[in-house]
Amino acid sequence: MVSTRNTSPYADFDRLFSPRGIALVGASATPTSLGGQPLRFLTEYGYAGRVYPVNPKYPELKGLPCYPDVASVPDPCDLALIVVGAHHVPGVIDQCGARGLPFAIVLSAGFHEIGARGADSQRALEAALARNDVRIVGPNCIGLLNLDEHIHAGFGGAMSNRNLRAGRLAMVTQSGGYGLGMVTAADQQGVGFNYIVSTGNETDISATELIRYLLEREDTDAVVAYLEGSTDGRGLLDIGRRALALEKPVLMWKVGNSRSGRRAATSHTGRLSAGPELFRRALEQGGYIEIGDTDDVVDLAQFLRYRKRARGNRVAVLTLSGGAGVLVADLCEQNGFEVPETSAATLEKLKPDAPEFGALGNPIDLTPQGYGDNFASYNRVIATVLAAPEFDQAIVRSAPGAIAAVWARGFVEVARASDKPVMLQWGSGSERTQEAFDTVQAAGIPCFLSPRRSMNALGAMYRFGVKADRFKARAGGDAPRLVQAKALELPASGALGEGASKQVLARYGIPVVRSRLFAENEIDTLRDPRLTYPLAVKIESPDIAHKTEAGAIRLNVTDLAGLRSAARVVVAAARAYRPDARIDGVLVQEMASGTEVILGAVDDPYFGPTVMFGLGGVLTELLHDVTHRFAPFDLAVAHDMVNEIKGAALLRGYRGARALDVAALAEVLVRLSLLIADHAARIKEIDVNPLFVRPAGEGVVAADALVVLHGSTTR
Amino acid sequence: MVSTRNTSPYADFDRLFSPRGIALVGASATPTSLGGQPLRFLTEYGYAGRVYPVNPKYPELKGLPCYPDVASVPDPCDLALIVVGAHHVPGVIDQCGARGLPFAIVLSAGFHEIGARGADSQRALEAALARNDVRIVGPNCIGLLNLDEHIHAGFGGAMSNRNLRAGRLAMVTQSGGYGLGMVTAADQQGVGFNYIVSTGNETDISATELIRYLLEREDTDAVVAYLEGSTDGRGLLDIGRRALALEKPVLMWKVGNSRSGRRAATSHTGRLSAGPELFRRALEQGGYIEIGDTDDVVDLAQFLRYRKRARGNRVAVLTLSGGAGVLVADLCEQNGFEVPETSAATLEKLKPDAPEFGALGNPIDLTPQGYGDNFASYNRVIATVLAAPEFDQAIVRSAPGAIAAVWARGFVEVARASDKPVMLQWGSGSERTQEAFDTVQAAGIPCFLSPRRSMNALGAMYRFGVKADRFKARAGGDAPRLVQAKALELPASGALGEGASKQVLARYGIPVVRSRLFAENEIDTLRDPRLTYPLAVKIESPDIAHKTEAGAIRLNVTDLAGLRSAARVVVAAARAYRPDARIDGVLVQEMASGTEVILGAVDDPYFGPTVMFGLGGVLTELLHDVTHRFAPFDLAVAHDMVNEIKGAALLRGYRGARALDVAALAEVLVRLSLLIADHAARIKEIDVNPLFVRPAGEGVVAADALVVLHGSTTR
Repeated sequence: MVSTRNTSPYADFDRLFSPRGIALVGASATPTSLGGQPLRFLTEYGYAGRVYPVNPKYPELKGLPCYPDVASVPDPCDLALIVVGAHHVPGVIDQCGARGLPFAIVLSAGFHEIGARGADSQRALEAALARNDVRIVGPNCIGLLNLDEHIHAGFGGAMSNRNLRAGRLAMVTQSGGYGLGMVTAADQQGVGFNYIVSTGNETDISATELIRYLLEREDTDAVVAYLEGSTDGRGLLDIGRRALALEKPVLMWKVGNSRSGRRAATSHTGRLSAGPELFRRALEQGGYIEIGDTDDVVDLAQFLRYRKRARGNRVAVLTLSGGAGVLVADLCEQNGFEVPETSAATLEKLKPDAPEFGALGNPIDLTPQGYGDNFASYNRVIATVLAAPEFDQAIVRSAPGAIAAVWARGFVEVARASDKPVMLQWGSGSERTQEAFDTVQAAGIPCFLSPRRSMNALGAMYRFGVKADRFKARAGGDAPRLVQAKALELPASGALGEGASKQVLARYGIPVVRSRLFAENEIDTLRDPRLTYPLAVKIESPDIAHKTEAGAIRLNVTDLAGLRSAARVVVAAARAYRPDARIDGVLVQEMASGTEVILGAVDDPYFGPTVMFGLGGVLTELLHDVTHRFAPFDLAVAHDMVNEIKGAALLRGYRGARALDVAALAEVLVRLSLLIADHAARIKEIDVNPLFVRPAGEGVVAADALVVLHGSTTR
Repeated sequence: MVSTRNTSPYADFDRLFSPRGIALVGASATPTSLGGQPLRFLTEYGYAGRVYPVNPKYPELKGLPCYPDVASVPDPCDLALIVVGAHHVPGVIDQCGARGLPFAIVLSAGFHEIGARGADSQRALEAALARNDVRIVGPNCIGLLNLDEHIHAGFGGAMSNRNLRAGRLAMVTQSGGYGLGMVTAADQQGVGFNYIVSTGNETDISATELIRYLLEREDTDAVVAYLEGSTDGRGLLDIGRRALALEKPVLMWKVGNSRSGRRAATSHTGRLSAGPELFRRALEQGGYIEIGDTDDVVDLAQFLRYRKRARGNRVAVLTLSGGAGVLVADLCEQNGFEVPETSAATLEKLKPDAPEFGALGNPIDLTPQGYGDNFASYNRVIATVLAAPEFDQAIVRSAPGAIAAVWARGFVEVARASDKPVMLQWGSGSERTQEAFDTVQAAGIPCFLSPRRSMNALGAMYRFGVKADRFKARAGGDAPRLVQAKALELPASGALGEGASKQVLARYGIPVVRSRLFAENEIDTLRDPRLTYPLAVKIESPDIAHKTEAGAIRLNVTDLAGLRSAARVVVAAARAYRPDARIDGVLVQEMASGTEVILGAVDDPYFGPTVMFGLGGVLTELLHDVTHRFAPFDLAVAHDMVNEIKGAALLRGYRGARALDVAALAEVLVRLSLLIADHAARIKEIDVNPLFVRPAGEGVVAADALVVLHGSTTR
């Protein structure tokens, strides 16, 4: 095994993946049984460590001494592989704990995934884990593979394949069957894994912990994850950041996104999952590449092993078929690449090698007229294009037929001589072109039959690279906080009234409308509210979140008499609506105007503090035109949020209207993100609805706000 | 050749695809040359017709008499294959015309696709076509293949492959190179074509004519089209309808959709194209399946040859891996399928065959515990599920490993016994499962390695089937026209004033606001406009389309004095804005209110009459939330339009508001579609902006309208 130093704090699973010895608890003499299969794999496939069958029924198995219990197993032993019935598992965990084994893999099923019938076993297992210092994978999993060390610690058809090629991809799968199927299919297409682990019910070790560990290993190029669900939102965010820092993607296949898919996932492993919107956002933001097919793994693997990286997104497309050029240009634009026109200087250099009917713009179409020189002129054109400063990389369509073998040797030389990446697209993979294909593959150049697949993979790698670059640019030095953490005076639980909620916002520098709170008995003697009319008059009560519904709000009050009358009305309405409501007074505030936007902050149970932003009105409610980020964040992220909603143009000055104060809006988003991040231990949710955005230079102001604390049942 | 009776009016290309004899004009003794390659293919690959080399340089070629010109060629001869230089081609066309040949294929390049250098040859070719009764494919194409009859009438690497398998797919490609590459790639995956034609510049015969012809042939299951562009919008609509009537899809690969893709397409064949929005709409509406990869053709081919069709979209998912079930359920929902829960009655029947830890909901997960009986119980479960009334079809995940071969024989029997379709998904295609795979394929059951690919293909076929069913249901009897064609009094050209435009709408029964037109000299003596105040006052002039910009409109006029003043103001403003404007008077109309929507009708130069619909305000302008249809159409289509815009919920009574009069809106859309369809010869464009939609039962009313005639430069 390659020695790997862990450079970051996360669970150390080295001995799980590379055990010096394995106790097989429930080992069986029947080679096809659950206890017989791993015995066969571990003794016959080349594992160099020790294997200790454990089963009181046998004195020896396959020529190995068989031990009556885990206590009797000698050193070295780092892992127990457990295949006994569910009700026996807790006792085996106790034995492992007593013996000092750090890890166990529980293949046995019959725990919470089968519902009430498995509840007793589940409780007993959890109790055993609580009282022992043993960490387990599973239960209800199919095991673990370390192909470099020939460890097949599990069962099933795919696990039994001793010829699986070893590579530099790791896999963490919540579906053992599907994950191993993926490994097998990738193997048949020339792509190998090193570590593969099926996580089962995840009663102890979670998929995210395993991804985090495997990502960190120096002998992996990427981790493939097949997830049905996860509640470890914070873990997903951490993995996402670390993947960007390491420039090593997690290829995430997330299933269970549909109604019937979730139903199936629940009946499969009893799994819960974080909400799909934040899940997707975590993937978009972190070092993940979303995949949806084994083909995606196979395609991305070509780029993962190719070390050249483009400095930008400007692509030259070289082809012998005009039609293919049109297609590839389309696919480039769909995937975020530019296909700039060839410069005059480059055109001049290309002319000597171009045929009569060729087109040298970009796509550069040389037509199939190069048979005379075995397409040597095509290779000269490729070299010229790679040297041109207007292109960052080249996508080359192959030469056709048997001649391709000769052409490919020259092409590989041209590609090698440039520090810019190239990708080859094959017209059709016939026997006549196999030699050429092999030549290019051997040179490590990504090469594809399907233009769509090739461009999807190239695009995904490009977007990953952009994310990694941005991450590193920011990691250089954190921007100073817009506002330092402030102490807040908060009640024990429940919701805050509007005035108190706005005070919380104001503590973090979020502008709120000018207002004053009057006690009920002050109203009749009031002479001057010292606010500018017209005014809004609202009940201040922690027990009335929906003031409009309660009739406890009056707008456009224009004089003192109206103010007194409105105050009496809202108090009476509040009492009628909810007789037991605590009434802290009457809130009198100036009316604000501007373009309405909505801000929200939530301490998500899985992902922690988050901030939501959307335009007011139908855009948010009808079209769900909102966006989310994990808090806290900086001004650059806040501007991303503002720009990415569909209605963003309305804020920038639509149809000749004045541009709005987006700078002030972005600052409020940052301040809100700091507020929820600093106080997520107490604050569950903050609504700012509406916040009025005024013309550029005139700022923003929150006209209503609601802060809800953890432990509240108000909403 | 299979005899094929043409059942519909379209060009008859039987003799083009099955010529009794072929004159090869420009035949050459050099086997690799443009004139040598087809000579070799036509004489060596098994073509049963006569081949006549034409070249004054040779007395004979390859043992065949060589003729000095086309006039000397004896009968039977239906086709000239022309490979001479561009400037000689027009003369050869004249020879073909004199000789009475119906068809020619021009492989030669050097016409308008190379710009100014080719302009002379292009003009001469067009003149020759005009004076002769010869129809040509090309120029600048790579030829035609009829694999059943071993006709390889063209040149290039793929054309030279004599081992291409024959099948029941036809291909029409605007890129010879890419199209032939696709045929080769499909061939390697077991999918064959019968007719393949490269269309080149389409100076005469267009891609749409060829698609239309091949679609009609009884020996094709589908036509694959690779198009960079087309201006034959009406042809595309006709093909779309005919494909639905025949229940035979056109697999459309449309490229050149991006900026650089269009640039490449233009430099490739000098091709123009209809606009992308209507193009896409024509594909969505007609019997097309959009594709974007050769893989799509290969996948769809499996369903094209499978004759069983599901009666509905309710899918049972059967699997031995819970994780795979989750994935497939997701993919089902993404593709428009339901995955209903298993009924109680079916659950009861399944129980005897279900293992301990299986999940029988749906997905139905039997876990991999069936090795004991070679998965015979799995097959019994599949049979039970196929018999269950709650499912229309089944998606089955294969049994694993070597056992699959035994299981597959039983599975094929179960599938055969049911009239419901099944699809098989393979876990991984290893050598151990090859026999099973072959068994299932031989039975004609669609079978796939990639779940994503399988579901995309199944979904595409399902949506095609739904379109075909709807088409046929409607074809049964056309709904009566809401309004009979009406004669219109229209000026010779230009735009109509607002009042005249509204009269046009009113002729077709579209409600317009009540209004009266007053001459300038009537204003001062006016006593009572006989309209309900408040009123709008606007200039009536065919020369002022943008009244607001001209200041020639006054709103909310509340009394007679105000009316007279407003009328004087708008006339003065109009004169100031455009001194030479013709002024037909002052239009006085009642103010209307309601929810604003926008309707438009355009006689598109390529697709003919079309109607656009969107909500007013930001939804249309900022989010492009509009939809289009080809006119005329019926109420069902009009309701589709209303329902498919994103803001549709606003019309149905959003957040407790009253539902609006969608029935009246739909009726107006139909009436507008009849208006533009009846008068597209004269009317270029109609804007109805805004149309006010009132609450249900209260109708709609057009508050402004503009009719623009063909030949107008106003807009």
